[in-house]
Amino acid sequence: MRVLGVDPGLTRCGIGIVDGGAGQAPRMVAAGVVRTPADADIALRLLQVAEEVEALMDRYRPDTVAVERVFSQHNVRTVMGTAQAAGVVALAAARRTIPVAWHTPSEVKAAVSGNGDADKAQVATMITRLLRLSAPPKPVDATDALALALCHLWRSPLQNKLAEQTRLARGIRMVAR
Amino acid sequence: MRVLGVDPGLTRCGIGIVDGGAGQAPRMVAAGVVRTPADADIALRLLQVAEEVEALMDRYRPDTVAVERVFSQHNVRTVMGTAQAAGVVALAAARRTIPVAWHTPSEVKAAVSGNGDADKAQVATMITRLLRLSAPPKPVDATDALALALCHLWRSPLQNKLAEQTRLARGIRMVAR
Repeated sequence: MRVLGVDPGLTRCGIGIVDGGAGQAPRMVAAGVVRTPADADIALRLLQVAEEVEALMDRYRPDTVAVERVFSQHNVRTVMGTAQAAGVVALAAARRTIPVAWHTPSEVKAAVSGNGDADKAQVATMITRLLRLSAPPKPVDATDALALALCHLWRSPLQNKLAEQTRLARGIRMVAR
Repeated sequence: MRVLGVDPGLTRCGIGIVDGGAGQAPRMVAAGVVRTPADADIALRLLQVAEEVEALMDRYRPDTVAVERVFSQHNVRTVMGTAQAAGVVALAAARRTIPVAWHTPSEVKAAVSGNGDADKAQVATMITRLLRLSAPPKPVDATDALALALCHLWRSPLQNKLAEQTRLARGIRMVAR
C-alpha cells in the first residue's frame, strides 16, 4: 500500500510518499516540494504544480493520494491558492483513477502525535521517529505531506482495502489485454 | 477577439462565450452550464468539470479565458469547491497557452450595469440588452459567465491586444510548419 501525501499550496506544495500496511512498519519512499514564484501568473503556477505532481504520480504509482483538507485560514488569498492547488492535484489523481482522500490538519496531527493541536516541531519529531529517519525529513516542507500519508495509512484501513482491490483489478485488466 | 467566461463552481459551473472587439457589437457565441452531483466524490466532480470545459475550449478556441475571482463567501465549504473548480479551469487554459484573466463579481457587475452592487435580475436584464438577445440567457446559470466575458472585453483592451498578438504568432508558427 503506497500513499502519496500532498500539503497543497502554490508557493510551496509539499509531497511525501510512504509505503505501509497492516503489521508493517511504514517506510518513506520519497519526499519533495514543488515551489512556484509568487509573482508568476496563477494559471502558470497551477500548471507547474500539476506537471510536477503528475510526474511523481507516474513515477511512484501510489495506490491513494491523501490531500490536506483546508477549511479556513487567516489569509483568504492564501486559502484560494491552496484550494486551487488541491484541485489540480485531485484532478491529476482522478485522471489516473487513483482515489483521493482528504484529511484535516487536526486529524493529521492527532494521528501522528496523539495531539490535534501539535506544533510543527512536534510533528517533525514524530515523523522522524515513526519513519525511523536519521534526521528530520528534508525538505522540511515535505513534513506535513509525510504526516498526511501516515495519517491516511492508519485512519483508513477500509478505504485502503478498496484502493488495493482497485489496483489489483486494474492489474488483472492489464494482464487480460 | 473571443472570450470564454467561467463562473466557477462544482455544483454549477457557468460558461459563456462572447465575440467582440473595438467598435464591434458583442455577440454571444455559446452559453452553458456544467453540473456535477453534490454527493459525488470531489476529485471525480473536478474531473467532470475539467473535461467539459476542455471540450469547450477545444471546440470554440477562445483567445482569453476570464474567470471569476472569489475572495470570500459566507459558506467556506462552497468557497473551497469554487476555488478548486477555478483551479482546474485555469490549468486547462494554461495547458493550451490561453491567457487567464480574473475579475471580481463587483468589477463584473459594474462593467455590465454601471453598478457594482447590481442584483442578479439587473445583470440578466443588461446582458440580454447588451448581447441583443430576444430573451434572458439560457441556461440562467450562464448569465454571470456571459457578464464576465463582456466585462473582460471592455476592461482589458491592452490584455486583449496581447492575447490577439499571441494568437496571431501561434497562427504564424502553425503556418511556418
